[in-house]
This record gives sequence, C-alpha cells and structure tokens, in this order.
Amino acid sequence: MSERVVLAYSGGLDTSVAIPYLAEQTGAEVIAVAIDVGQGGEDLAAIRQRALDCGAAESVVVDAREEFAADYCIPAMRANALYMDRYPLVSALSRPLIVKHLAEAAKYYGGTIVSHGCTGKGNDQVRFEAGLGALAPDLKVIAPARDFAWTRDKAIGYAEEKGLPIDVTHKSPYSIDQNLWGRAVETGFLEDIWNAPIEDVYSYTANPAESRDPDSVVITFDAGVPVAIDGETVTPYQAIVELNRRAGAQGVGRLDMVEDRLVGIKSREVYEAPGAIALITAHQELENVTVERDVARFKKGVDQRWGELVYDGLWFSPLKHALDAFIDDTQKYVSGEVRLALHGGRAVVTGRRSEASLYDFGLATYDTGDTFDQSLAKGFVQLWGLPSKLASARDARLGGTER
Amino acid sequence: MSERVVLAYSGGLDTSVAIPYLAEQTGAEVIAVAIDVGQGGEDLAAIRQRALDCGAAESVVVDAREEFAADYCIPAMRANALYMDRYPLVSALSRPLIVKHLAEAAKYYGGTIVSHGCTGKGNDQVRFEAGLGALAPDLKVIAPARDFAWTRDKAIGYAEEKGLPIDVTHKSPYSIDQNLWGRAVETGFLEDIWNAPIEDVYSYTANPAESRDPDSVVITFDAGVPVAIDGETVTPYQAIVELNRRAGAQGVGRLDMVEDRLVGIKSREVYEAPGAIALITAHQELENVTVERDVARFKKGVDQRWGELVYDGLWFSPLKHALDAFIDDTQKYVSGEVRLALHGGRAVVTGRRSEASLYDFGLATYDTGDTFDQSLAKGFVQLWGLPSKLASARDARLGGTER
Amino acid sequence: MSERVVLAYSGGLDTSVAIPYLAEQTGAEVIAVAIDVGQGGEDLAAIRQRALDCGAAESVVVDAREEFAADYCIPAMRANALYMDRYPLVSALSRPLIVKHLAEAAKYYGGTIVSHGCTGKGNDQVRFEAGLGALAPDLKVIAPARDFAWTRDKAIGYAEEKGLPIDVTHKSPYSIDQNLWGRAVETGFLEDIWNAPIEDVYSYTANPAESRDPDSVVITFDAGVPVAIDGETVTPYQAIVELNRRAGAQGVGRLDMVEDRLVGIKSREVYEAPGAIALITAHQELENVTVERDVARFKKGVDQRWGELVYDGLWFSPLKHALDAFIDDTQKYVSGEVRLALHGGRAVVTGRRSEASLYDFGLATYDTGDTFDQSLAKGFVQLWGLPSKLASARDARLGGTER
Amino acid sequence: MSERVVLAYSGGLDTSVAIPYLAEQTGAEVIAVAIDVGQGGEDLAAIRQRALDCGAAESVVVDAREEFAADYCIPAMRANALYMDRYPLVSALSRPLIVKHLAEAAKYYGGTIVSHGCTGKGNDQVRFEAGLGALAPDLKVIAPARDFAWTRDKAIGYAEEKGLPIDVTHKSPYSIDQNLWGRAVETGFLEDIWNAPIEDVYSYTANPAESRDPDSVVITFDAGVPVAIDGETVTPYQAIVELNRRAGAQGVGRLDMVEDRLVGIKSREVYEAPGAIALITAHQELENVTVERDVARFKKGVDQRWGELVYDGLWFSPLKHALDAFIDDTQKYVSGEVRLALHGGRAVVTGRRSEASLYDFGLATYDTGDTFDQSLAKGFVQLWGLPSKLASARDARLGGTER
Repeated sequence: MSERVVLAYSGGLDTSVAIPYLAEQTGAEVIAVAIDVGQGGEDLAAIRQRALDCGAAESVVVDAREEFAADYCIPAMRANALYMDRYPLVSALSRPLIVKHLAEAAKYYGGTIVSHGCTGKGNDQVRFEAGLGALAPDLKVIAPARDFAWTRDKAIGYAEEKGLPIDVTHKSPYSIDQNLWGRAVETGFLEDIWNAPIEDVYSYTANPAESRDPDSVVITFDAGVPVAIDGETVTPYQAIVELNRRAGAQGVGRLDMVEDRLVGIKSREVYEAPGAIALITAHQELENVTVERDVARFKKGVDQRWGELVYDGLWFSPLKHALDAFIDDTQKYVSGEVRLALHGGRAVVTGRRSEASLYDFGLATYDTGDTFDQSLAKGFVQLWGLPSKLASARDARLGGTER
Repeated sequence: MSERVVLAYSGGLDTSVAIPYLAEQTGAEVIAVAIDVGQGGEDLAAIRQRALDCGAAESVVVDAREEFAADYCIPAMRANALYMDRYPLVSALSRPLIVKHLAEAAKYYGGTIVSHGCTGKGNDQVRFEAGLGALAPDLKVIAPARDFAWTRDKAIGYAEEKGLPIDVTHKSPYSIDQNLWGRAVETGFLEDIWNAPIEDVYSYTANPAESRDPDSVVITFDAGVPVAIDGETVTPYQAIVELNRRAGAQGVGRLDMVEDRLVGIKSREVYEAPGAIALITAHQELENVTVERDVARFKKGVDQRWGELVYDGLWFSPLKHALDAFIDDTQKYVSGEVRLALHGGRAVVTGRRSEASLYDFGLATYDTGDTFDQSLAKGFVQLWGLPSKLASARDARLGGTER
Repeated sequence: MSERVVLAYSGGLDTSVAIPYLAEQTGAEVIAVAIDVGQGGEDLAAIRQRALDCGAAESVVVDAREEFAADYCIPAMRANALYMDRYPLVSALSRPLIVKHLAEAAKYYGGTIVSHGCTGKGNDQVRFEAGLGALAPDLKVIAPARDFAWTRDKAIGYAEEKGLPIDVTHKSPYSIDQNLWGRAVETGFLEDIWNAPIEDVYSYTANPAESRDPDSVVITFDAGVPVAIDGETVTPYQAIVELNRRAGAQGVGRLDMVEDRLVGIKSREVYEAPGAIALITAHQELENVTVERDVARFKKGVDQRWGELVYDGLWFSPLKHALDAFIDDTQKYVSGEVRLALHGGRAVVTGRRSEASLYDFGLATYDTGDTFDQSLAKGFVQLWGLPSKLASARDARLGGTER
Repeated sequence: MSERVVLAYSGGLDTSVAIPYLAEQTGAEVIAVAIDVGQGGEDLAAIRQRALDCGAAESVVVDAREEFAADYCIPAMRANALYMDRYPLVSALSRPLIVKHLAEAAKYYGGTIVSHGCTGKGNDQVRFEAGLGALAPDLKVIAPARDFAWTRDKAIGYAEEKGLPIDVTHKSPYSIDQNLWGRAVETGFLEDIWNAPIEDVYSYTANPAESRDPDSVVITFDAGVPVAIDGETVTPYQAIVELNRRAGAQGVGRLDMVEDRLVGIKSREVYEAPGAIALITAHQELENVTVERDVARFKKGVDQRWGELVYDGLWFSPLKHALDAFIDDTQKYVSGEVRLALHGGRAVVTGRRSEASLYDFGLATYDTGDTFDQSLAKGFVQLWGLPSKLASARDARLGGTER
C-alpha cells in the first residue's frame, strides 16, 4: 500500500493545487479533509468533490460546528479571551480542532504525513504543528507554501498546467479566514497602518454608522455557558449563530489593530466577531456579579495567559489544561441573565440578575434597608494603610522618596 | 491659639453643615479647602464665600486642574488604567490630589485635624485616610458621616436650626462625583441592577443613539503623553478638555457595571468618561505599535495592579511608586499619532503612525518587498512546541490526560 | 436552655481562665474543644479533664492528626508553600482545621458563640474569624485577649482568685505554637532582630552543628502525595512524623526571619519544620522532573498566591479553591522517587527517578545516543530574539536606550 | 583588506581549533577575544599567546571582572535571581557581558562575523545570538560546533593534522563553565539523574560534611549593593571574591537539579556558587526588613520573570530594562547590615539591623512598650473576610462548593 498524506483542505486554490503536487513530491496518496467550523460560504459537497477532481484518493468533510462552539468557542468566552485586550482568537481557536480531526483521519486512513497550507511567517503554522506534535508526534508535516516557497502565481501556473478544476481568474484582494467565532481579513492596502479599513472589507457586520432600530437581547448563562437567548433554549452553536446575526446587524464586533505575532513581528489585522464580542461582554459582566473579588482579580492574569497560550499555538499544552481547571472552578456560579443593548456598533450591558449574585442590596444601598456596619470601617482603613504609612514615615525620616 | 481642623470642602450640604458642627464638636477653628479638579458646575468664588458664611475661619480654593491632568490623569492613561477592565478611576484619581492639598493646608495653617465627608461603606474614606497616613501621619481624621452617623435628614435639620445659607429644598435623586477625568453617578433606582440607566443620568455625554455627523481626531503622543490634538499643541489638561468635548458629543465613554469595592461589597456604578476612554483607546493602540511584545504582555499585569492599587486607595504606596518606574521605562518610545473615529458612542482607532514604530512593513507584508526569512520558521516551530510534545507523549504513555 | 459558647481550648492558662470568665460575661455554658493537630506535649485526656475542672459544661478532644496531614499539610506541600520563600505556614494551616471542628461542635452542641485566645495584633485572629465567617457566618465571636484586653497578669490573678487547677508558677519565656507541620517560637529577646536565636529555643530539631552520621531517605510520591518512605508504605501523617524525626535529628528545617503580618506590621519569627522542609524539597525537585516548563513557571505564581492566601487567613476563600483546582491538575504525573541526603541542617536531593519523567536522556546527553536535532536551533534562536532585535534597532535609530 | 571574524576565545581545544578552521572556511582573518570574568585557572597572557600561535591575526584579553561583578552579578542579586528557585544564573550572566565585548571588538577591528563555541542544544547559543542581534544586528554569526556539527574527536584530529599547540591528551570527564558568580559542571555519569554527584565534581566549595569551625560574616548593603564585609569597604568584585572564599570554605552553595532549558528539554545540572548564595540569602533577608509588604509580594513575580528572561538569553531585551527600573526603585532603602553564620554547607541569617528598617519594635513587641492599637483589628478582620463570607453564604444557599 502506498503512503498517505492527510491534507487540511479548504477548497481554495492553494490546497487544491497541493493535491497533485503532494502526490508528485511524495509518491503518496492524498486524503483531503475539510472541516466545517461554521465558515459558511461554499457548499461542502462541492468542496468534497473538488478534492476528488483534483486527484485526492479520499475526500472527507466533517461537520464540526457544534463541537467547535461547545469545546473551543465557549471555553474562550469563559476565559474572556481577547488577545491584546481586543482579538477574540478566531483563527487560533479553529486550528486545534482541525488538527484533532486531521490526526483522527491520519489514524483512520493510515496516513503518515500531514499537510497544511500555512506560510512560514504566520501563527497558523505553529498552531498546526505544535498541535500535531502533541496529538500525533509521529506524523511528518509538509507545508508547501513554506517548505517549497510556493506562491500564488506558481500555484496558478501549476493549476493551469494540470488542468485542475479551479477558477483562478477571480483574484480577491483579501486574504480571509472565517469561522463561527469571527472573521479575519488581511489585504495589501491595510499593510499601511495609517490607512483606515473601508466598508468593503466587512462581511459579518453591517455598517454601525447606518441608522436602524436598536435591538435588545437577554442571554441566560448556566455555570458559564450560554443556554438561552431571550428565554429560548439554545445550544452553544445556536447561541453564537443567533448573536452573530443580531449583533452583526448592529455593526457590533469590528476590530482593527496592530498585533504581536508569535514569530516575532507585528502585523495589521482587521477582524469581525459580533457574536463573540456580545457573548464575552455579557459573560464578563455576569462574572462581575457572581465571582468573588480575589478570584476576579487573579482570573484576569489566568485569562490573559490562556489567550496568549492559545494564540501562540499551545492549545494542547499542559498549562492550557491546568488553566482550564482553574477557570472551570470559577464558573460554577456564573449563572443568570444579562440584558444587552445592541446598537450602533456597541453591545452594552443594561441589566443583570442572578440567583447566584454576590451583589447584596442591603450592603450596597444608601437608602432604607442598609445593613452595612460602618463602624467596622475605621479599623479596616487604619490597618489597610499601615504598611504604606510605615514606609512613608521611614522615607521621610531618611530624606525621602518624592511621592 | 485654638486647634484647627482642615476640611475637604465641596460647597454642598454635607460639608457646609460640617463647618459649624466640627467647630462645636472639637472646639477648633475650621479651615475650608476646596480643590478645583475640573468638576465644573458652581463658581468657586461662591463656594469659597459659602464656607465663610457657614462659619469657617479661613476658606481656600485651589485651582489644581493642570496638576490633576498632568500628574494624575495622564499616569492613569499610561497605565491604561481601567479597573475591572472598565472603570477609568475617576474619583480614585482625584482623592490623592485632594489629600495632598489638605496636608499642605494643614501644614500652612497649623491644622492638627483633617475632616472629609465620606461614608464608611465606600472607597473614598480609604483613599483619604490611607493617603493622609502616608503624607501626614500625625493628623487626626474626623469623618462626620461615618464617625457620627450623620445622615442627610440630620444635616438638613441642623442647617435649618443654624440658619446656614444652603439651599436644602432641592433634593437631587443622584449622588454624583465628577472631575476632569469623568463622572460617577449613583442613585436609588440603579441599586436594582436589572434596571437600565435612563438618559437623565448623563451629563458629560450626548445620547449615542442620536444621529450626528461622525468626528475624527488625530492625537499626537510624545513618550506616552498627549501633546497635540489635530496638530495643535495642547497641555494634558487641554487635551482632556477637548476630548471630553468632542468624544462626549458623540456619546463616547458611558459605563455601567457592578464593581468590587475595597470594603468587600459589590456595588452598581454608572460612569461617563469620554476623554479618558478616547485617550486610553488611542494610547493602547500606540503601545501596540511601539512597545515590544514581552514588555506589552508583562505590562498588562503591571497595569492591572496599578489600577487596583489606585482604586484601593494606595496612590502613595511604595508599590505604586515602583510600578510607575516600570511604566515610565516602557513609555520612552510611545510616540506618534493615532487617528480616532468618534461616533455613535464609539472611539475607534482607524490609523496610527510613528517614527518609533516596531511594525516593520518588510517583515509584515505578503506582497513585494517581503524580507521575512520563512526558512527560520521550521526550527522555531519544532522547538517552541517541544515541551508540550514531550508532555503529551508522556501522558499518552501513562494512559493520559484527555486533551 | 442557656446559650452555649464553643471555646477553642488548648489546656493552657489563657483558655483555661477563659472558661469561667466567658461563663460570667455571657451567662452561657462553655463547651471546650481541643483539637489534636500533632502538637504533642501534654496528654489529651488530662487537657479534657482540666476544662471540666475549670467549669466547662462539655469538654471534647478531637484527634485530627490524619486529617490535618492529608487535607492541610499535603496540599501545602503540593503548593510548595513557603511564605516569603521561607515559612511553611505551620500555624496558618492548623487554624482552618480548628475552625472547621469548632463550627461542627457549635452545630452539634447548639453553640451560638465561638471563642478563641488570639490577640488583636497577630494573624491567627484573622484565620479564625475569616474561617468562621465562611463556615458559620451566624456565630458570634469573642476573643477575650483582644476584646477585653486580657493580659497574662490579669489571667493569673483571675485563676488564683477562682482557684482554678492551673499551674501559674511556671512562666516560660517562649510563646510557642506547634503542630505536626512545625513549630513557631516568639520570645522577648528575639524582638531585637540583631540577636541570634539560642539553642534553647529549639525542640523539633537537633543542633545542625553537632556531629552525627548522615542519613539518606528515599521518598516515593504518587500524584503529588508521599506514599512511601524507604519503600515502606505510609499515610501522609506517618510520612510527616517519620521525616520530622529523621530530618529533625539532622537539624533540618530551622528558620529565622522577619515576616510581613497581615495586620500590617513586620515581626521576627523563628520556626522549626524538619519534615515540611524535607518534603517540600523533595516534591519541588520531583516537579522539576515531571512538570512541563510553562506549567512550572506559571505554577510559581499560583504557589505564591496560595501561600499568601492561606497565611492571610483565606483558606476557605473561593480563590484558594480555584487555585487548588489548578494545582490538582498539575500533580497528576508528579509521581516517582526522590533520594534526599539529610545532614548538618541540610536536606539535599541527590537522585530522582520516575516513570513520568520528562527528562529525556536521548535529548539531554552529549554522549552517544544524542537524538536532539541541532539544525532546528538556528531558526529558533533567530525568531526567539527577533522582537528584542527590532526594538534595539529602533532604539539605536532614535538615539537609544542604554542597554 | 580581508574580512574579519571575531571569535569568543576560551583557550580550550574547541575555540583554538576554530581559529584555523574559521580562517579556512571564510577566508577571513580571525580576531581572538578572551574575556576575564573571574574564571580563574589559566594565565591570560598564555591564552592570548596561544590564539596567536594558532593563527589568530589579533588576540585580545579583556579584564572584565569588576564590570562583571558590578553590572551583571549585583543586579542578579538585587533580583534574588534563582532560576527555578535554585540556580543563580552563573553562565547566563557572563554571556551578555562577553557579547558586549565581542560587539565592541567587532566594531574596533572591523569584524563582520562573530563566532562562538556553543552547541545547538544548549542555552548559551541563544544568549550569544539574541545578545548580538540586539547589540550588533549586522554581524553574521558562525557557531562551528552547531553549524558544522563539529565534535571533540573531529577537533582533536584537526588539531593534530594542523600541529596546533594544544594539549589534546588530557581528557577531562567534566564539561565546565565557571566565573566569578559560580561554576557549572556537566558530565556523563550525572546524565543518569538517579546518580548522586561525587566529591570530585566540586572545586569552589569544600565538603560541607567535613568538620571545621563555623564562620560568621557581617555584610553591609547600601541601596541594594554590598559595600562592606565585616566593616571593611569592598567593591562588588571584592565582596564576591571574599564570600566565595569564606562561604566556599564552609561548603555553601552546592546545587544539583533538573532544569528546563530554553530549547525545550530538561537537563541535569550541578552548580557551585558559594558567594552568590551567601549574598542572595543576606540580601533577601534585608529586603524582608526594609521593603514594604505589597512591594515584596509583587517583586517576587518581577524577580522570577527577571531570572527567566536572563536565563532565556534576553538580557538586552526591553522587558529586562523595564524590570530593572522597577527593581532599582525598590532598592533605594535596602541598606543595613546582615550577619550570616556560615557552616556545614549552610549560610544562615542570624541578625539584621538597618536605619531604614520597617520593623517597628513598638508595634511588634508583646512586652512593655506595645503601641499597636488592637481595637482596630476587629473591623479589619470583618471587612477583610467579607467577600469570602458572602461567597460562602451564596454557595451554601445554592447547595454548595465543598470547602
């Protein structure tokens, strides 16, 4: 039996061309594996067929949408994962899921090589290969774009030469990666970081400046998982789809930033993630209501590290696993309802209520019903400030730090 | 000479009533000190006179607006200080400045007691008293509202009894603290955290839902300090005033949250901080462009701790001082221009440029001119993922953690 | 039925005197509860009887030694808990256990008040009362030493007046708290922090300077728990007892430090903790062998926070609970053997072996059998240093930070 | 003029052979640069001559001992830098200093290539090349051991073939790197991590088990720098030399650990660092006395990151620079005296005194003179525990987390 290459297949030019090319280079049969992570767009049956038409020995399409929502997007929301305080890890989340299915396909089909379409200057190569190293360390990896310096022009030439059934005439100016959790856009004119994005760049979101009626949505969480929208029970996948639709219609979730890539360079990125931003906004406020202060403060550091690890391709790392154990423990009481106003590009919390609330009206109110014993404060304040007071006195005595 | 009390005077009912009351209770002369931190509203000369009319031995008004902007607001912006990722520390920033001037006044006028109007369940008592402990540890502190359980009704009765020149008929439903950096509002109906704020609550910001033409502003920073707006040189104070005006007109900077107070309770707070939010947004993106990745990642933890310390009343603490040394070091190259679009409640960065940029077009571009050596990536990826790979192999060998 | 006070009873002067005094002050019956946390010394039956002789309505002795070892000491070892890098939390660990049994006794005997002997300037009052607040928030707390300014002389006078069966003639110069995990000593002459401890201060440890034959011990861990000593199966309690004996005989575990108390002051403390130091030393090295690098680095911050929380009296806090979830996850593979040399006050690891080791001889060796592919290093090194390199080039271009 | 290679020259086999080999391979002249970082051993004039005898065009020896002590070792001590809580960064500290002198030599002699003797599986290659990337990004780097897979046997063969004046008969079983701050030893039999080190491995330290009279030393610090030993003024270099001698004579500073290398593997390392361990021990305790609690707690995280950065080759990184700014700020009052007992392998603090002490006898004492107001404690304790108490009550109400 000949050797087999499992190819992460998207249906696009680069990975279509890779099918005959990999076969040529390695003498192996190519198994094309396309994963549906909610990227929408083209019909998956057509994609499946195209791989066969390009010469794949097998072509598989996996509907991983619910899995992606439940096991990748929602954990990111529970970590309030925003890389550099902005980016909800759109592509970074889908890569480990794809890796998992590639590793499974390799096992099932007896593949010994895996191939992906990433370049050598992005983050995705790391996410693929660090993930494969963890899940299937024996597989060899080939990345034609990086390892054979494969370019678009070379790919077109090769496709024409081989008569591959791919439309190479349409040249989008945009390089796009999209899935259920959001959409990333890169394009030449945005590489000048002084240039503003134009409306044409966006697809998941309407123009926030355009007038429309405000929307209001109530999201119900149970132990840190969204379980209902406006009272209607939903799966995580349905919650994200619905919020993509409604928050997207209000222009919520557009992001434009300069970002630190793992490979050591800064890049300009434009993202849209309406559902992700709406969910994280609501979740974070429900945490404000239900999570104890010291936990909340420490969790910010955990959340940041979680986001960096996942961004940096270490989804399958033991540290990610241990951080998840911490986060799981904190989510037990993150249950309740949050009302979001969606309008003009903004998702704004306007109300929250919860059986598990730590907000105590009696302790908080300045009106009738106040149960807070103010006489406790004086002692607290004195001892709270004591170390600083002693240090200031010392500094003053010795000539002092200017404070 | 009789003893002297230095009173942090606002001109309002509580601190006006405190003047004769403190004199009565302590037998001391009262020195009223009002600090202008850009709170606007009433004429300061009128406030000064009112204190005298209420029986103050001396009444002083200090214009501390430029000082507040330069030495308190801008350092907060350099720390991207948003307590719980939201609140730009409006009141928390003015308290240490007021403390500083109270301590100076006590020294100048020979005061031995300081008095403030804070209650025993808020953060401000801590900020006052921890600050005084650091700057003037020998001063005794009296907080009538807390120490004598002084209530509004009691204050009104006392004012009428003494015939104090204060209008007690107007009862605002809102408890407000405002300054140059923003405005905080508390009110009974918002103590039900499911209730949304109503338009009436706001004063610094227009309704973001109302239609108006978008605004665009270019902010120039030099070493982490805003020095020009649309090319016109400004002081920090002028920068904040101008951005309060322009961002406020677009409804930018409204915040509504449940917040962890230092005294251990959660409270509902509504804020407006148009200039603060605009400046922090621009500053943060300029850091994305000019600050190296490891610094940026570590600085998030420093920024968080800075915000917590200042929120918790420890402005004059040695840790705050040491964190400032770290932050100062990171700001040396945070210079350049950021363009913000202001509209519909959002301040959005649309462009950035800087002599000190670490964004390298050659390394970032996917077009002609690419200087990134992709052949380096393979070795990097392999060693980057090696510890996780070894751990996964071990786990698999021993029966394994599910990843 | 009359009200009941549950008293944390030690058998010493202060808590013995507290029995009639609390009865007098509150009109309640006193239930004395003594907890055996391995403090050794006096016979517990005698302690039990003494409480009755002093007038206690009930007197209970709880053998909590195995529980203390398994549920308090070993978790501390798993967190490598050394407050300020030195102190293994001896007293801080026993307090929550005592609190738990007091709360249970209060429930069982219908107590509504709890009493403890702590002063108002130490940490233990916080550990008692924060613990009780978490476990039994409805109980009232009385601390005679703090709340009634009870002193030793006053206690002696009262004991003599009431004819209590307590020997008040012996006045030890030392204030001691000891349990299975170690021993804390305070005494007047050590309050001069330039004075060295004298030999007389110590009880758990022999003088390390005295000559004796070295000892060597092999500790076996399973998932972060010591399960055998020199091949013989042990419970956690037995492991600690045995290591106290053997490490103590070699003078291991003496500590002398200036320490930051939670109440805001610095104090001088002398400790002995032979078993704790031996176990933590061995555990930490086994982690070096079995825990992945990123986990190990992050865990240091978790361990530090764990130690601070427990020191600060927050054993029952939700953050402690969430940190435990993180730590549990990291300990799954902390299994294997560590050989310690014990001699001259030092516990030194001299060997380690583990099925779960991440040390890979092939990758590590410089001799025959080397499997490390050095060709990967060049790319790794280049990209690893790239962000710093870009920053340095920028700095140089702009006139530069001196590095 | 021909091209020039600047070679980091040690006088040993590998770098001696590199001289003719580099000349052959590159056609360039070789400039040998040897740096005295206190490694002792061979005469530097002899080393200088050997390079010339091997064919170097120029041979330079730099006495960098005082610079190494003041600018590299002491900053490490101020950061209490112990990688993985153990290793005082011996080699990691000398590499950036060597890099600095190589870059200067390259500039002075017109070198365009730099060469070092590191392999591709250690940390030192990263320290060299990341450092060079920061200081002299235009220089090309050649590492013969890594880039040409140069082995010891190959080197011996080449030396004999070329008749180089090197004694290749003596084959030490140890691979050693040593300098003023300590000594690192690797050897085949220690690659079995169950094997204990033998006495033969050590050179800086006497056997701690051998009987000798205890030593006692008083170290005076000024703003975090050691300035006197037993009252005699010293430079940093002299302080380290003296403490290496005295602590070494008592067997202080032997370390044996499994360590996480930057390249992703674990390795077994044995170190000796008597002076470093003595100084860090004393410095840390002086910090306990003079540094405020919150600073001390935060500094632990800064110290850890500092150690990791330097270990990881990022001495010249902007984050290291910013962490230094933080540390500098904390050291202003780290002044005073620490008395250390040195004996039997242990350096133990037995006394400390300081004008800048934050230890307040009046607040700390339990004897006459107590100035601590215990009445403040009750309020403090209540509010300190309030968030946990509210969370526990919520948990209990909802069925509860087991605590």
